[in-house]
Amino acid sequence: MKDFQGMAGTTGALALRLSQFVFAAVSLCVMATTSDFPSVTAFRYLVAAVGLQCIWSLSLALVDTYALLVRRSFRNTGAVSLFAIGDGITSTLTFAAACASAGITVLIGNDLDKCNLNHCTRFMSATAMAFLSWFAVSPSFLLNFWSLASR
Amino acid sequence: MKDFQGMAGTTGALALRLSQFVFAAVSLCVMATTSDFPSVTAFRYLVAAVGLQCIWSLSLALVDTYALLVRRSFRNTGAVSLFAIGDGITSTLTFAAACASAGITVLIGNDLDKCNLNHCTRFMSATAMAFLSWFAVSPSFLLNFWSLASR
Repeated sequence: MKDFQGMAGTTGALALRLSQFVFAAVSLCVMATTSDFPSVTAFRYLVAAVGLQCIWSLSLALVDTYALLVRRSFRNTGAVSLFAIGDGITSTLTFAAACASAGITVLIGNDLDKCNLNHCTRFMSATAMAFLSWFAVSPSFLLNFWSLASR
Repeated sequence: MKDFQGMAGTTGALALRLSQFVFAAVSLCVMATTSDFPSVTAFRYLVAAVGLQCIWSLSLALVDTYALLVRRSFRNTGAVSLFAIGDGITSTLTFAAACASAGITVLIGNDLDKCNLNHCTRFMSATAMAFLSWFAVSPSFLLNFWSLASR
């Protein structure tokens, strides 16, 4: 089987992992530094989900760096299925958190028109960053799943 | 390639499609019959997403019924990739709508404690049905994607 860019152990995968990590970390910092995020369950959940995404993406980035340094690729079914399952879980959690936060941000901003009373822009940027992080996780998940199915 | 139960054109797939359709239709009816759903963007979006899911699942259920009646299975790459892409899109939309509604339902119920002023139980049941519909779409998507990758 040919290795596509983006499968575990390639420079594409490392780039994806790093962008996931950066977006998730920015989202975490922006949301965690607002004073009133703990009053909304969805925002607390966003912090947790995006924190998990940070840890997962950073560890996989280290694994990919190691694989690139020793010039190996992952042909081990166990490793690739672990990556696919982990990506599936973290991407679902991040996406769910981003959607829940987006729902509440839109409720505050458009439906109730109370955006000036809240840290509305910060909530919005944290949500947008969580979505960007999800956009970077999905190709990782799909490529790992694909490489698992096609062996 | 062996056909697993749940891949397009099997009885498992038909059962999955019918359960997707039923859950999405129940969610649509419960949400659309509340009087104040149009005041919240996320609930309007849930109605749209779940409506799309209904149409998609019903048409695929018809396709599966036809395939079962003529005793054929889908070995055509074009058809299976169309199903996988459609499932991917509708499942993402349904999941996003369910998460956004869940975020708002939890906000109303737990954080603001205004559940008795709203159709809270109806919002909750519509959200739960949308999640159940998503639980039934995910295996369809994963199996179609798997059968696409493994040919």
